[in-house]
Amino acid sequence: MTTEAQSGAAIELAVSTVIFALRPAEESERVVLSIPLVRRTRAPFAGRWTLPGGWADPEESLADTAARKLFETTRLQPAYLEQLYAFGDVDRSPTGRIVSVVYWALVHADQAARAAEGENVRWFAADELPELGFDHNRIVDYALWRLRTKMEYSRIAQAFLGETFTLSELRQVYEIVLQRPLDPANFRRQMEGSRALVATEERVTGGRHRPPRLYRYDTSAPLVDHGPLGPP
Amino acid sequence: MTTEAQSGAAIELAVSTVIFALRPAEESERVVLSIPLVRRTRAPFAGRWTLPGGWADPEESLADTAARKLFETTRLQPAYLEQLYAFGDVDRSPTGRIVSVVYWALVHADQAARAAEGENVRWFAADELPELGFDHNRIVDYALWRLRTKMEYSRIAQAFLGETFTLSELRQVYEIVLQRPLDPANFRRQMEGSRALVATEERVTGGRHRPPRLYRYDTSAPLVDHGPLGPP
Repeated sequence: MTTEAQSGAAIELAVSTVIFALRPAEESERVVLSIPLVRRTRAPFAGRWTLPGGWADPEESLADTAARKLFETTRLQPAYLEQLYAFGDVDRSPTGRIVSVVYWALVHADQAARAAEGENVRWFAADELPELGFDHNRIVDYALWRLRTKMEYSRIAQAFLGETFTLSELRQVYEIVLQRPLDPANFRRQMEGSRALVATEERVTGGRHRPPRLYRYDTSAPLVDHGPLGPP
Repeated sequence: MTTEAQSGAAIELAVSTVIFALRPAEESERVVLSIPLVRRTRAPFAGRWTLPGGWADPEESLADTAARKLFETTRLQPAYLEQLYAFGDVDRSPTGRIVSVVYWALVHADQAARAAEGENVRWFAADELPELGFDHNRIVDYALWRLRTKMEYSRIAQAFLGETFTLSELRQVYEIVLQRPLDPANFRRQMEGSRALVATEERVTGGRHRPPRLYRYDTSAPLVDHGPLGPP
Protein backbone atom coordinates (compact mmCIF):
# COMPACT_ATOMS: atom_id res chain seq x y z
CA MET A 1 0.00 0.00 0.00
CA THR A 2 1.23 3.47 -0.78
CA THR A 3 0.39 6.69 0.96
CA GLU A 4 -0.81 9.54 -1.19
CA ALA A 5 2.06 11.98 -1.63
CA GLN A 6 1.31 15.57 -0.61
CA SER A 7 3.69 16.93 -3.23
CA GLY A 8 6.22 15.59 -5.71
CA ALA A 9 9.20 17.01 -3.85
CA ALA A 10 10.27 13.87 -1.95
CA ILE A 11 11.65 12.51 -5.19
CA GLU A 12 14.92 13.88 -6.53
CA LEU A 13 15.18 14.64 -10.20
CA ALA A 14 18.37 14.08 -12.20
CA VAL A 15 19.29 14.64 -15.85
CA SER A 16 21.77 12.38 -17.66
CA THR A 17 22.86 12.13 -21.27
CA VAL A 18 24.08 9.31 -23.49
CA ILE A 19 26.49 11.07 -25.88
CA PHE A 20 27.32 9.18 -29.06
CA ALA A 21 30.24 9.91 -31.39
CA LEU A 22 32.40 7.94 -33.81
CA ARG A 23 35.96 7.73 -32.48
CA PRO A 24 38.98 5.47 -32.94
CA ALA A 25 39.03 2.67 -30.38
CA GLU A 26 41.74 3.02 -27.76
CA GLU A 27 43.86 0.06 -28.80
CA SER A 28 43.38 0.13 -32.57
CA GLU A 29 42.76 2.60 -35.34
CA ARG A 30 39.28 1.15 -35.92
CA VAL A 31 36.54 3.78 -35.56
CA VAL A 32 33.75 2.65 -33.23
CA LEU A 33 30.52 4.07 -31.80
CA SER A 34 31.68 5.61 -28.53
CA ILE A 35 30.26 7.31 -25.45
CA PRO A 36 31.98 9.36 -22.75
CA LEU A 37 31.57 8.22 -19.15
CA VAL A 38 32.38 9.86 -15.83
CA ARG A 39 34.00 8.00 -12.95
CA ARG A 40 32.15 8.48 -9.68
CA THR A 41 34.29 9.73 -6.81
CA ARG A 42 31.63 9.28 -4.11
CA ALA A 43 29.22 6.66 -2.81
CA PRO A 44 27.05 5.12 -4.06
CA PHE A 45 28.98 3.29 -6.77
CA ALA A 46 32.28 5.12 -6.01
CA GLY A 47 34.87 4.18 -8.65
CA ARG A 48 32.26 2.99 -11.16
CA TRP A 49 31.74 4.69 -14.52
CA THR A 50 28.39 6.41 -15.11
CA LEU A 51 26.67 8.63 -17.66
CA PRO A 52 27.45 12.37 -17.49
CA GLY A 53 24.72 14.25 -15.66
CA GLY A 54 23.64 15.82 -12.42
CA TRP A 55 20.66 17.23 -10.58
CA ALA A 56 17.99 19.03 -12.53
CA ASP A 57 18.23 22.78 -12.00
CA PRO A 58 15.05 24.65 -10.94
CA GLU A 59 15.99 27.58 -13.20
CA GLU A 60 16.80 25.60 -16.35
CA SER A 61 14.72 23.52 -18.74
CA LEU A 62 15.59 19.81 -18.74
CA ALA A 63 17.07 20.04 -22.25
CA ASP A 64 19.23 23.03 -21.25
CA THR A 65 20.54 21.11 -18.24
CA ALA A 66 21.36 18.15 -20.49
CA ALA A 67 23.27 20.36 -22.95
CA ARG A 68 25.11 22.18 -20.16
CA LYS A 69 26.20 18.93 -18.49
CA LEU A 70 27.27 17.62 -21.87
CA PHE A 71 29.45 20.72 -22.37
CA GLU A 72 30.88 20.62 -18.84
CA THR A 73 31.91 16.99 -19.28
CA THR A 74 33.25 16.99 -22.82
CA ARG A 75 33.58 20.69 -23.88
CA LEU A 76 31.41 19.72 -26.87
CA GLN A 77 28.20 21.12 -28.37
CA PRO A 78 25.78 18.44 -29.52
CA ALA A 79 24.80 18.28 -33.20
CA TYR A 80 21.61 16.51 -32.09
CA LEU A 81 19.91 16.28 -28.69
CA GLU A 82 16.68 14.46 -27.89
CA GLN A 83 14.91 13.24 -24.79
CA LEU A 84 15.21 9.47 -24.44
CA TYR A 85 13.08 8.46 -21.47
CA ALA A 86 12.35 9.21 -17.82
CA PHE A 87 13.68 6.30 -15.77
CA GLY A 88 11.71 6.07 -12.56
CA ASP A 89 11.88 2.59 -11.04
CA VAL A 90 11.61 2.69 -7.25
CA ASP A 91 14.87 0.84 -6.52
CA ARG A 92 17.23 2.33 -9.11
CA SER A 93 19.35 4.20 -6.55
CA PRO A 94 20.36 2.75 -3.17
CA THR A 95 20.31 6.17 -1.48
CA GLY A 96 16.74 7.31 -2.08
CA ARG A 97 14.27 7.81 -4.85
CA ILE A 98 15.79 9.40 -7.94
CA VAL A 99 13.99 9.86 -11.25
CA SER A 100 16.40 10.48 -14.15
CA VAL A 101 15.24 12.21 -17.30
CA VAL A 102 17.74 10.90 -19.84
CA TYR A 103 18.68 12.60 -23.10
CA TRP A 104 20.75 11.24 -25.96
CA ALA A 105 23.03 13.30 -28.13
CA LEU A 106 25.15 12.95 -31.24
CA VAL A 107 28.33 14.94 -31.77
CA HIS A 108 30.36 15.45 -34.96
CA ALA A 109 33.34 13.16 -35.38
CA ASP A 110 35.77 16.06 -35.80
CA GLN A 111 34.52 17.62 -32.56
CA ALA A 112 34.62 14.33 -30.71
CA ALA A 113 38.29 13.91 -31.70
CA ARG A 114 39.15 16.95 -29.57
CA ALA A 115 36.81 16.12 -26.67
CA ALA A 116 38.17 16.59 -23.18
CA GLU A 117 39.37 13.46 -21.41
CA GLY A 118 40.86 13.12 -17.97
CA GLU A 119 41.33 10.74 -15.11
CA ASN A 120 37.60 10.71 -14.44
CA VAL A 121 36.23 11.27 -17.96
CA ARG A 122 36.90 8.67 -20.62
CA TRP A 123 35.37 7.48 -23.90
CA PHE A 124 34.30 3.84 -24.19
CA ALA A 125 33.12 1.68 -27.09
CA ALA A 126 29.33 1.80 -26.63
CA ASP A 127 28.96 -1.95 -27.19
CA GLU A 128 31.74 -2.97 -24.79
CA LEU A 129 31.00 -1.18 -21.57
CA PRO A 130 32.11 -2.25 -18.09
CA GLU A 131 29.49 -2.64 -15.38
CA LEU A 132 28.24 0.90 -14.80
CA GLY A 133 26.75 2.49 -11.68
CA PHE A 134 22.99 2.60 -11.09
CA ASP A 135 20.89 1.25 -14.02
CA HIS A 136 23.10 2.97 -16.60
CA ASN A 137 23.89 -0.17 -18.63
CA ARG A 138 20.16 -0.57 -19.22
CA ILE A 139 19.88 3.09 -20.18
CA VAL A 140 22.72 2.79 -22.71
CA ASP A 141 21.14 -0.36 -24.16
CA TYR A 142 17.91 1.54 -24.71
CA ALA A 143 19.70 4.55 -26.22
CA LEU A 144 21.57 2.23 -28.63
CA TRP A 145 18.29 0.69 -29.69
CA ARG A 146 16.71 4.13 -30.23
CA LEU A 147 19.72 5.36 -32.23
CA ARG A 148 19.76 2.26 -34.47
CA THR A 149 15.99 2.30 -34.98
CA LYS A 150 16.03 5.99 -35.82
CA MET A 151 18.92 5.71 -38.26
CA GLU A 152 16.79 3.43 -40.40
CA TYR A 153 14.02 6.00 -40.98
CA SER A 154 15.55 9.46 -40.44
CA ARG A 155 18.49 11.57 -41.61
CA ILE A 156 20.10 11.49 -38.20
CA ALA A 157 23.38 10.01 -39.49
CA GLN A 158 24.23 13.51 -40.63
CA ALA A 159 24.85 14.56 -37.03
CA PHE A 160 27.90 12.26 -36.88
CA LEU A 161 29.56 13.96 -39.87
CA GLY A 162 30.71 17.47 -40.70
CA GLU A 163 28.95 19.73 -43.16
CA THR A 164 30.12 17.88 -46.28
CA PHE A 165 31.08 14.24 -46.74
CA THR A 166 31.57 11.60 -49.37
CA LEU A 167 29.05 8.82 -49.92
CA SER A 168 31.69 6.41 -48.71
CA GLU A 169 32.04 8.30 -45.41
CA LEU A 170 28.27 8.31 -44.96
CA ARG A 171 28.07 4.58 -45.68
CA GLN A 172 30.77 3.96 -43.07
CA VAL A 173 28.68 5.81 -40.46
CA TYR A 174 25.77 3.46 -41.15
CA GLU A 175 28.05 0.41 -41.14
CA ILE A 176 29.69 1.34 -37.85
CA VAL A 177 26.44 2.18 -36.04
CA LEU A 178 24.36 -0.68 -37.47
CA GLN A 179 27.32 -3.10 -37.23
CA ARG A 180 26.83 -4.66 -40.61
CA PRO A 181 28.41 -4.17 -44.05
CA LEU A 182 26.31 -2.39 -46.70
CA ASP A 183 26.66 -2.87 -50.43
CA PRO A 184 28.30 0.33 -51.80
CA ALA A 185 26.35 0.35 -55.09
CA ASN A 186 22.98 -0.23 -53.39
CA PHE A 187 23.77 2.40 -50.79
CA ARG A 188 24.69 4.95 -53.46
CA ARG A 189 21.45 4.23 -55.33
CA GLN A 190 19.31 4.57 -52.20
CA MET A 191 20.95 7.80 -51.09
CA GLU A 192 20.86 9.39 -54.52
CA GLY A 193 17.17 8.46 -54.78
CA SER A 194 16.22 9.71 -51.31
CA ARG A 195 16.37 13.45 -52.07
CA ALA A 196 17.84 13.93 -48.57
CA LEU A 197 21.33 14.49 -50.03
CA VAL A 198 22.54 17.36 -52.15
CA ALA A 199 25.60 16.88 -54.37
CA THR A 200 27.98 19.83 -54.04
CA GLU A 201 30.35 21.02 -56.76
CA GLU A 202 33.29 20.15 -54.52
CA ARG A 203 35.41 17.04 -54.55
CA VAL A 204 37.81 15.65 -51.99
CA THR A 205 41.19 17.34 -52.42
CA GLY A 206 44.22 15.11 -52.82
CA GLY A 207 46.36 13.38 -55.39
CA ARG A 208 43.79 10.92 -56.67
CA HIS A 209 42.93 10.64 -60.32
CA ARG A 210 39.19 10.92 -59.81
CA PRO A 211 38.56 12.28 -56.31
CA PRO A 212 35.13 11.45 -54.84
CA ARG A 213 32.39 14.10 -54.84
CA LEU A 214 31.34 15.80 -51.59
CA TYR A 215 27.68 15.75 -50.55
CA ARG A 216 25.72 17.63 -47.94
CA TYR A 217 22.32 16.93 -46.41
CA ASP A 218 19.33 18.91 -47.55
CA THR A 219 18.92 21.18 -44.53
CA SER A 220 15.49 22.45 -45.57
CA ALA A 221 13.91 19.55 -43.66
CA PRO A 222 14.67 18.64 -40.03
CA LEU A 223 16.80 15.57 -39.26
CA VAL A 224 13.88 13.92 -37.48
CA ASP A 225 10.15 14.65 -37.36
CA HIS A 226 9.32 15.63 -33.79
CA GLY A 227 5.71 16.51 -34.49
CA PRO A 228 4.15 19.28 -32.43
CA LEU A 229 7.09 19.47 -30.02
CA GLY A 230 9.30 20.81 -32.77
CA PRO A 231 13.07 20.40 -32.81
CA PRO A 232 14.66 20.04 -29.40
CA MET B 1 23.15 32.56 -14.86
CA THR B 2 21.99 29.57 -12.88
CA THR B 3 23.26 28.35 -9.59
CA GLU B 4 24.30 24.73 -9.40
CA ALA B 5 21.53 22.83 -7.63
CA GLN B 6 22.65 20.89 -4.55
CA SER B 7 19.99 18.25 -5.16
CA GLY B 8 17.05 17.68 -7.46
CA ALA B 9 14.46 18.08 -4.72
CA ALA B 10 13.48 21.72 -5.34
CA ILE B 11 11.55 20.58 -8.38
CA GLU B 12 8.20 18.87 -7.92
CA LEU B 13 7.44 15.82 -10.00
CA ALA B 14 3.97 15.07 -11.35
CA VAL B 15 2.54 12.22 -13.45
CA SER B 16 -0.31 12.79 -15.92
CA THR B 17 -1.93 10.57 -18.52
CA VAL B 18 -3.62 11.21 -21.86
CA ILE B 19 -6.25 8.44 -22.01
CA PHE B 20 -7.66 7.69 -25.46
CA ALA B 21 -10.83 5.76 -26.22
CA LEU B 22 -13.44 5.67 -28.97
CA ARG B 23 -16.76 6.93 -27.62
CA PRO B 24 -19.94 8.44 -29.04
CA ALA B 25 -19.79 12.24 -29.10
CA GLU B 26 -22.05 13.93 -26.58
CA GLU B 27 -24.47 15.50 -29.03
CA SER B 28 -24.55 12.84 -31.76
CA GLU B 29 -24.18 9.13 -32.18
CA ARG B 30 -20.92 9.58 -34.10
CA VAL B 31 -18.01 7.75 -32.45
CA VAL B 32 -14.97 10.00 -31.95
CA LEU B 33 -11.51 9.76 -30.45
CA SER B 34 -12.08 10.92 -26.87
CA ILE B 35 -10.14 11.69 -23.71
CA PRO B 36 -11.32 12.13 -20.12
CA LEU B 37 -10.44 15.39 -18.37
CA VAL B 38 -10.65 16.50 -14.76
CA ARG B 39 -11.93 19.91 -13.71
CA ARG B 40 -9.57 21.68 -11.31
CA THR B 41 -11.17 22.82 -8.08
CA ARG B 42 -8.17 24.82 -6.84
CA ALA B 43 -5.76 27.49 -8.07
CA PRO B 44 -3.91 27.65 -10.33
CA PHE B 45 -6.33 27.25 -13.24
CA ALA B 46 -9.36 26.63 -10.94
CA GLY B 47 -12.35 25.67 -13.10
CA ARG B 48 -10.23 24.69 -16.10
CA TRP B 49 -10.12 21.15 -17.43
CA THR B 50 -6.80 19.27 -17.17
CA LEU B 51 -5.35 15.82 -17.74
CA PRO B 52 -5.88 13.26 -14.97
CA GLY B 53 -2.81 12.97 -12.79
CA GLY B 54 -1.17 13.95 -9.56
CA TRP B 55 2.12 14.01 -7.72
CA ALA B 56 4.58 11.20 -8.28
CA ASP B 57 4.64 8.84 -5.32
CA PRO B 58 8.03 8.02 -3.75
CA GLU B 59 6.97 4.40 -3.25
CA GLU B 60 5.59 3.73 -6.72
CA SER B 61 7.17 3.53 -10.17
CA LEU B 62 6.08 6.28 -12.57
CA ALA B 63 4.12 3.79 -14.71
CA ASP B 64 2.31 2.42 -11.62
CA THR B 65 1.34 5.94 -10.58
CA ALA B 66 0.02 6.63 -14.09
CA ALA B 67 -2.08 3.44 -14.06
CA ARG B 68 -3.37 4.12 -10.54
CA LYS B 69 -4.41 7.70 -11.40
CA LEU B 70 -6.06 6.42 -14.56
CA PHE B 71 -8.09 3.95 -12.49
CA GLU B 72 -8.97 6.50 -9.80
CA THR B 73 -10.28 8.92 -12.43
CA THR B 74 -12.12 6.57 -14.78
CA ARG B 75 -12.37 3.18 -12.96
CA LEU B 76 -10.75 1.72 -16.11
CA GLN B 77 -7.72 -0.50 -16.71
CA PRO B 78 -5.65 0.53 -19.73
CA ALA B 79 -5.25 -1.91 -22.62
CA TYR B 80 -2.05 -0.05 -23.51
CA LEU B 81 0.13 2.33 -21.47
CA GLU B 82 3.34 4.00 -22.61
CA GLN B 83 5.48 6.90 -21.47
CA LEU B 84 5.01 9.90 -23.74
CA TYR B 85 7.49 12.56 -22.62
CA ALA B 86 8.78 14.45 -19.59
CA PHE B 87 7.61 18.05 -19.90
CA GLY B 88 10.03 20.30 -18.04
CA ASP B 89 9.89 23.88 -19.30
CA VAL B 90 10.72 26.36 -16.56
CA ASP B 91 7.51 28.40 -16.78
CA ARG B 92 4.88 25.70 -17.32
CA SER B 93 3.29 26.18 -13.88
CA PRO B 94 2.69 29.60 -12.28
CA THR B 95 3.19 28.24 -8.75
CA GLY B 96 6.68 26.81 -8.91
CA ARG B 97 8.75 24.42 -10.95
CA ILE B 98 6.88 21.24 -11.85
CA VAL B 99 8.18 18.53 -14.17
CA SER B 100 5.41 16.26 -15.48
CA VAL B 101 6.18 12.77 -16.74
CA VAL B 102 3.27 12.15 -19.08
CA TYR B 103 1.95 8.74 -20.14
CA TRP B 104 -0.58 7.92 -22.82
CA ALA B 105 -3.04 5.07 -22.63
CA LEU B 106 -5.61 3.32 -24.79
CA VAL B 107 -8.72 1.69 -23.34
CA HIS B 108 -11.14 -0.72 -24.99
CA ALA B 109 -14.28 0.85 -26.41
CA ASP B 110 -16.57 -1.43 -24.39
CA GLN B 111 -14.77 -0.45 -21.17
CA ALA B 112 -14.80 3.24 -22.07
CA ALA B 113 -18.58 3.08 -22.51
CA ARG B 114 -18.93 2.35 -18.78
CA ALA B 115 -16.27 4.82 -17.62
CA ALA B 116 -17.06 6.93 -14.60
CA GLU B 117 -18.16 10.49 -15.27
CA GLY B 118 -19.16 13.17 -12.82
CA GLU B 119 -19.31 16.88 -12.27
CA ASN B 120 -15.54 17.13 -12.40
CA VAL B 121 -14.68 14.23 -14.73
CA ARG B 122 -15.88 14.36 -18.32
CA TRP B 123 -14.94 12.94 -21.73
CA PHE B 124 -14.14 15.34 -24.57
CA ALA B 125 -13.52 14.88 -28.29
CA ALA B 126 -9.70 14.87 -28.44
CA ASP B 127 -9.63 17.20 -31.45
CA GLU B 128 -12.08 19.76 -30.02
CA LEU B 129 -10.78 20.60 -26.59
CA PRO B 130 -11.42 23.80 -24.67
CA GLU B 131 -8.44 25.78 -23.37
CA LEU B 132 -6.92 23.51 -20.72
CA GLY B 133 -4.90 24.39 -17.65
CA PHE B 134 -1.09 24.47 -17.70
CA ASP B 135 0.47 23.35 -21.03
CA HIS B 136 -2.00 20.47 -21.35
CA ASN B 137 -3.28 21.44 -24.85
CA ARG B 138 0.30 21.11 -26.10
CA ILE B 139 0.66 17.76 -24.33
CA VAL B 140 -2.53 16.41 -25.93
CA ASP B 141 -1.37 17.64 -29.36
CA TYR B 142 1.85 15.70 -28.94
CA ALA B 143 0.03 12.58 -27.70
CA LEU B 144 -2.32 12.74 -30.72
CA TRP B 145 0.68 12.95 -33.04
CA ARG B 146 2.36 9.99 -31.31
CA LEU B 147 -0.83 7.90 -31.47
CA ARG B 148 -1.38 8.63 -35.16
CA THR B 149 2.26 8.04 -36.08
CA LYS B 150 2.31 4.79 -34.16
CA MET B 151 -0.91 3.48 -35.66
CA GLU B 152 0.76 3.58 -39.07
CA TYR B 153 3.52 1.13 -38.17
CA SER B 154 2.30 -0.93 -35.20
CA ARG B 155 -0.65 -3.11 -34.16
CA ILE B 156 -1.74 -0.62 -31.52
CA ALA B 157 -5.26 -0.22 -32.97
CA GLN B 158 -6.06 -3.51 -31.27
CA ALA B 159 -6.08 -1.77 -27.89
CA PHE B 160 -9.20 0.17 -28.90
CA LEU B 161 -11.18 -3.02 -29.65
CA GLY B 162 -12.24 -6.06 -27.72
CA GLU B 163 -10.74 -9.50 -28.20
CA THR B 164 -12.45 -10.21 -31.51
CA PHE B 165 -13.67 -7.81 -34.17
CA THR B 166 -14.70 -7.62 -37.79
CA LEU B 167 -12.45 -6.12 -40.46
CA SER B 168 -15.03 -3.37 -40.83
CA GLU B 169 -14.77 -2.49 -37.12
CA LEU B 170 -10.99 -2.42 -37.34
CA ARG B 171 -11.09 -0.19 -40.40
CA GLN B 172 -13.41 2.19 -38.57
CA VAL B 173 -10.86 2.49 -35.75
CA TYR B 174 -8.23 3.57 -38.27
CA GLU B 175 -10.65 5.93 -40.00
CA ILE B 176 -11.74 7.60 -36.75
CA VAL B 177 -8.21 8.03 -35.38
CA LEU B 178 -6.53 9.01 -38.65
CA GLN B 179 -9.56 11.12 -39.69
CA ARG B 180 -9.66 9.92 -43.28
CA PRO B 181 -11.69 7.32 -45.16
CA LEU B 182 -9.92 4.10 -46.14
CA ASP B 183 -10.81 1.94 -49.10
CA PRO B 184 -12.46 -1.24 -47.68
CA ALA B 185 -11.01 -3.61 -50.31
CA ASN B 186 -7.47 -2.21 -49.97
CA PHE B 187 -7.74 -2.33 -46.19
CA ARG B 188 -8.87 -5.97 -46.28
CA ARG B 189 -5.98 -6.91 -48.57
CA GLN B 190 -3.40 -5.13 -46.39
CA MET B 191 -4.69 -6.66 -43.16
CA GLU B 192 -5.01 -10.15 -44.55
CA GLY B 193 -1.47 -9.88 -45.92
CA SER B 194 0.06 -8.50 -42.73
CA ARG B 195 -0.01 -11.72 -40.69
CA ALA B 196 -0.94 -9.62 -37.63
CA LEU B 197 -4.53 -10.82 -37.80
CA VAL B 198 -5.89 -14.28 -37.20
CA ALA B 199 -9.25 -15.27 -38.65
CA THR B 200 -11.38 -17.04 -36.06
CA GLU B 201 -14.07 -19.64 -36.85
CA GLU B 202 -16.69 -17.29 -35.42
CA ARG B 203 -18.96 -14.89 -37.23
CA VAL B 204 -21.03 -11.99 -35.97
CA THR B 205 -24.34 -13.30 -34.64
CA GLY B 206 -27.52 -11.75 -35.97
CA GLY B 207 -30.10 -12.08 -38.68
CA ARG B 208 -27.89 -11.35 -41.67
CA HIS B 209 -27.60 -13.72 -44.60
CA ARG B 210 -23.81 -13.80 -44.60
CA PRO B 211 -22.60 -12.44 -41.25
CA PRO B 212 -19.02 -11.04 -41.27
CA ARG B 213 -16.19 -13.12 -39.88
CA LEU B 214 -14.57 -12.23 -36.55
CA TYR B 215 -10.81 -11.71 -36.38
CA ARG B 216 -8.38 -11.41 -33.52
CA TYR B 217 -4.85 -10.07 -33.41
CA ASP B 218 -1.95 -12.49 -33.31
CA THR B 219 -0.98 -12.12 -29.65
CA SER B 220 2.34 -13.97 -30.02
CA ALA B 221 4.02 -10.62 -30.83
CA PRO B 222 3.75 -7.42 -28.75
CA LEU B 223 1.60 -4.53 -29.99
CA VAL B 224 4.65 -2.30 -30.28
CA ASP B 225 8.40 -2.99 -30.24
CA HIS B 226 9.79 -1.28 -27.13
CA GLY B 227 13.32 -2.62 -27.58
CA PRO B 228 15.33 -3.35 -24.44
CA LEU B 229 12.78 -1.68 -22.14
CA GLY B 230 10.26 -4.40 -22.87
CA PRO B 231 6.51 -3.90 -22.63
CA PRO B 232 5.43 -1.19 -20.21
